[in-house]
Amino acid sequence: MGWEDIAADKKKRIADSIPQEWRIKSEPTDVSVMAYPKQSGIMSAEELAITESTAVDLVAQLAAGKLSSVAVTTAFLKRAALAHQLTNCALEFFPDIALARAKFLDEALKKDGKPVGPLHGLPISLKDQFRIKDLETSMGYVAWIGKYEEGNSVLVDMLERAGAVFYVKTSVPQSLMVCETVNNVIGRTTNPRNKNWSCGGSSGGEGAMVGFRGGIIGVGTDIGGSIRVPSAFNFLYGLRPSHGRLPYGKMANSMEGQETVHSVCGPLTHSVADMRLFVQSVLAEEPWKYDSKVIPLPWRGVEAEAVKAKITSGGLTLGYYNCDGNVLPHPPILRGIETVVSTMKKAGHTVFPWKPYKHDYAVNLINGIYASDGGTDIFNTLKESGEPAIPNFADLINSTLPKIDMNELWDVHLKKWAFQCEYLEQFRLMEEKLGKEIDAIIAPITPTAAIRHNQFKYYGYASAINLLDFTSVVVPVTFADKSIDVKDANFKPLNDMDKTVQAEYDADAYHGAPVAVQIVGRRLTEERIMEIAEEIGKLLGNEITL
Amino acid sequence: MGWEDIAADKKKRIADSIPQEWRIKSEPTDVSVMAYPKQSGIMSAEELAITESTAVDLVAQLAAGKLSSVAVTTAFLKRAALAHQLTNCALEFFPDIALARAKFLDEALKKDGKPVGPLHGLPISLKDQFRIKDLETSMGYVAWIGKYEEGNSVLVDMLERAGAVFYVKTSVPQSLMVCETVNNVIGRTTNPRNKNWSCGGSSGGEGAMVGFRGGIIGVGTDIGGSIRVPSAFNFLYGLRPSHGRLPYGKMANSMEGQETVHSVCGPLTHSVADMRLFVQSVLAEEPWKYDSKVIPLPWRGVEAEAVKAKITSGGLTLGYYNCDGNVLPHPPILRGIETVVSTMKKAGHTVFPWKPYKHDYAVNLINGIYASDGGTDIFNTLKESGEPAIPNFADLINSTLPKIDMNELWDVHLKKWAFQCEYLEQFRLMEEKLGKEIDAIIAPITPTAAIRHNQFKYYGYASAINLLDFTSVVVPVTFADKSIDVKDANFKPLNDMDKTVQAEYDADAYHGAPVAVQIVGRRLTEERIMEIAEEIGKLLGNEITL
Repeated sequence: MGWEDIAADKKKRIADSIPQEWRIKSEPTDVSVMAYPKQSGIMSAEELAITESTAVDLVAQLAAGKLSSVAVTTAFLKRAALAHQLTNCALEFFPDIALARAKFLDEALKKDGKPVGPLHGLPISLKDQFRIKDLETSMGYVAWIGKYEEGNSVLVDMLERAGAVFYVKTSVPQSLMVCETVNNVIGRTTNPRNKNWSCGGSSGGEGAMVGFRGGIIGVGTDIGGSIRVPSAFNFLYGLRPSHGRLPYGKMANSMEGQETVHSVCGPLTHSVADMRLFVQSVLAEEPWKYDSKVIPLPWRGVEAEAVKAKITSGGLTLGYYNCDGNVLPHPPILRGIETVVSTMKKAGHTVFPWKPYKHDYAVNLINGIYASDGGTDIFNTLKESGEPAIPNFADLINSTLPKIDMNELWDVHLKKWAFQCEYLEQFRLMEEKLGKEIDAIIAPITPTAAIRHNQFKYYGYASAINLLDFTSVVVPVTFADKSIDVKDANFKPLNDMDKTVQAEYDADAYHGAPVAVQIVGRRLTEERIMEIAEEIGKLLGNEITL
Repeated sequence: MGWEDIAADKKKRIADSIPQEWRIKSEPTDVSVMAYPKQSGIMSAEELAITESTAVDLVAQLAAGKLSSVAVTTAFLKRAALAHQLTNCALEFFPDIALARAKFLDEALKKDGKPVGPLHGLPISLKDQFRIKDLETSMGYVAWIGKYEEGNSVLVDMLERAGAVFYVKTSVPQSLMVCETVNNVIGRTTNPRNKNWSCGGSSGGEGAMVGFRGGIIGVGTDIGGSIRVPSAFNFLYGLRPSHGRLPYGKMANSMEGQETVHSVCGPLTHSVADMRLFVQSVLAEEPWKYDSKVIPLPWRGVEAEAVKAKITSGGLTLGYYNCDGNVLPHPPILRGIETVVSTMKKAGHTVFPWKPYKHDYAVNLINGIYASDGGTDIFNTLKESGEPAIPNFADLINSTLPKIDMNELWDVHLKKWAFQCEYLEQFRLMEEKLGKEIDAIIAPITPTAAIRHNQFKYYGYASAINLLDFTSVVVPVTFADKSIDVKDANFKPLNDMDKTVQAEYDADAYHGAPVAVQIVGRRLTEERIMEIAEEIGKLLGNEITL
């Protein structure tokens, strides 16, 4: 069988996994499919309410036996089925396994009188990089189709022990090294708010799925924006924890074993409250006893409380930047930053301009790291099946690059470390000047609102943070508005990339596109940054979005 | 100037840095120089008492103004001068700078009425890998002689802020990749207890210096035993913290940028109490704000208290092994393990045999990592000056090995990670079986007591722990005794290395040599392991050694 046939068969298997009664009879005509679940007639009012609830509320009701896991799982299965049919976001869909698990959990609750764990009965969607026993993990590679897993990823085990139900694995771009979601297996995943926009990537299937509320908590990975970009493009919160906070053991990946910049796992959610539920549930399982890369750092309630006290007293100290010195964001993003800055100032917090330190250098350095094997690993996987590379792929990694040598790599490691330490010095110098500790930096996560297809060019706002291994939480802010976010007629490009990115802006085309910022803190500051992100979300009115 | 002249000049400069009145008139004839300070007439009774005190006691007296830093520093300067003349252990000696600093601290205390920090006025010796502004860091390389530093290593800055006084930097083996201490600059450092024995390496100068009490707390580094082996060979405690606990920023090193297995900094001391003082003092400086590789993990008093409670109730759970399956230790080490095991059992703790999991595999893997650039970095440094490689060097790294390729390195990373996770699984399986948590493992750190020169062949007891990045504390146990530790006539070697190592044993030659064990815990368990090591030391009567 040629690669086209293998891919077509896989695509058909995914489509076939959707029961007849959940199938869409006629394609919606609107560019947005957000209203479809309500109009479809496929979902009951209760199912709509369940899927539009919060994870925190659902687990409370599940634990109390007020909602059954079968009911909750069925609701999300239906909505996920719609999500896939409308945005093409799933690489695995397994309602039977999910419902059997839900039934088991319902019975366990009845029998034991208590929930299995803090996520008892809650459906969680996974990027198709997580291994689940007996399922495929194609990760968008044709070559990997037909290989069935012998065991779970570590995080899958932890979530399962916490009581979660798995029901879907979502699409990714071929290689994962792209911030849009296109592969040769199922094609492109689109944004549920507008089919002309990207859902982001590489956890783009999660972005579309959770954005559409086919999922309540989705789990993605991020080595250069792959959790944060889809969160931003789908009006979601997204956590890129620092490396070593959450387990990555036994995940599938491209460029496996590359450790200069680590990919990390993290959740995409509708609220920080749900994000916190996820992180606390995983940490309670002591992942450091299973994955050697995880730091033995339980949830630090003391850290969270200390930040809460600052929030209450208007005592946060927040830096911000709206341009990294490489590429100026589009008008909606500039307004997004300004909105958050003025909101936080109004709430009495100290907000000061942060000068991005050598971000151009950082972006070049990390691009070199992504390409350090000259694409060997990825191109070998493509060769296995004969499938071609997707177009965007060449933006980041291209087969003409030479593999770097061991001593060159060591030199890169030294440069990375020195840059990280210099960045910490910038924090200290500013803290001395301000006479107080910096709590976080408010920054763009992409230079654009949810982007039009094939236009994602500049990864630097995301990837500089990966190089620093700083903790980052994406906060949804607003939507592009053609009446306010007018094109800057006096724009002078700093460089070719800046010119290309800015040229893409079109106030009409981007009207309504989600606008987000990221809240960034030093390494391993998850508790603190989540607390601040939650406060910003609350002040913006976006924290609970029922 | 040829390399020999450059080295000879450096050696002379070190000798010249010792004031006339501290110079030894006639060489002692005994193989041990331990009694020399008392006999020399160079040190006063008070100076002897100071140098034979504890750091904990000294900082208390310094902070209270009962002892001046000038007095304490002078005492250690004198004893360090003797140490160097007797064991050849210093690569830098700078009494004038040290005394000026001590005077400054004494005045600051008088002026401010309080100490600068928790180490106020305390002399600390440093391995010649730590950078101090305006001094050389030759690290035993002829090529690096004559280069004066523009700034301090991060840890040096932290210790300075904590109030420490620097006065000496100690010798290392060329390249650092050897567990004896020989270089072409000053030659060989010997063991103060017997000039026929090695002081260990690579922090061998620290071992000899602190062992001789020319230092009270010494700071070394460890990538394959380099803190632990010199601690063991000099009857000292030594901490190899897990990577990321203490700062390594701006250190000199061989193979800089190699990140597959990280070298770490840690103290060599006469007691865990002094070790704890050091670690707490450094962590109080928040090193994670200066060195990006440091995890934001302050001293965890709660962890220490939890272990203390177990100790009090006889509730520790300790595994042990006396053979790693590769090389059987000499009789004194087997007795050392047995002594600790029976002592802990007698104290009511649970002690069970631990089966070392694939240590042969681990040792091969880490040896490959040490050699991953085919020795390029080290041989380039040798070429710069023209100096030859020291003999032992070829045991670990040899220039005929090929440099490995990027994708091969990634494969090594995956193997390392998988091995680490499998090892964690062994812990979990045993914990399930025992029905309780394992607190630590008691293990050999070397297969021999303080070894005769040029006989250090097997690094595996140390290096397997580096591959795991487990926390380890060396505890001095006893001394080899020819009347008890008789050669095993029925020994059957497992392999050539085992045969070679065992053949080296000679009960007469090793009579009196220090015997130690290491106490090993999972990653980042410093508080716990130090607490257990202290208890073992106390029960053995070795914890406070005045």
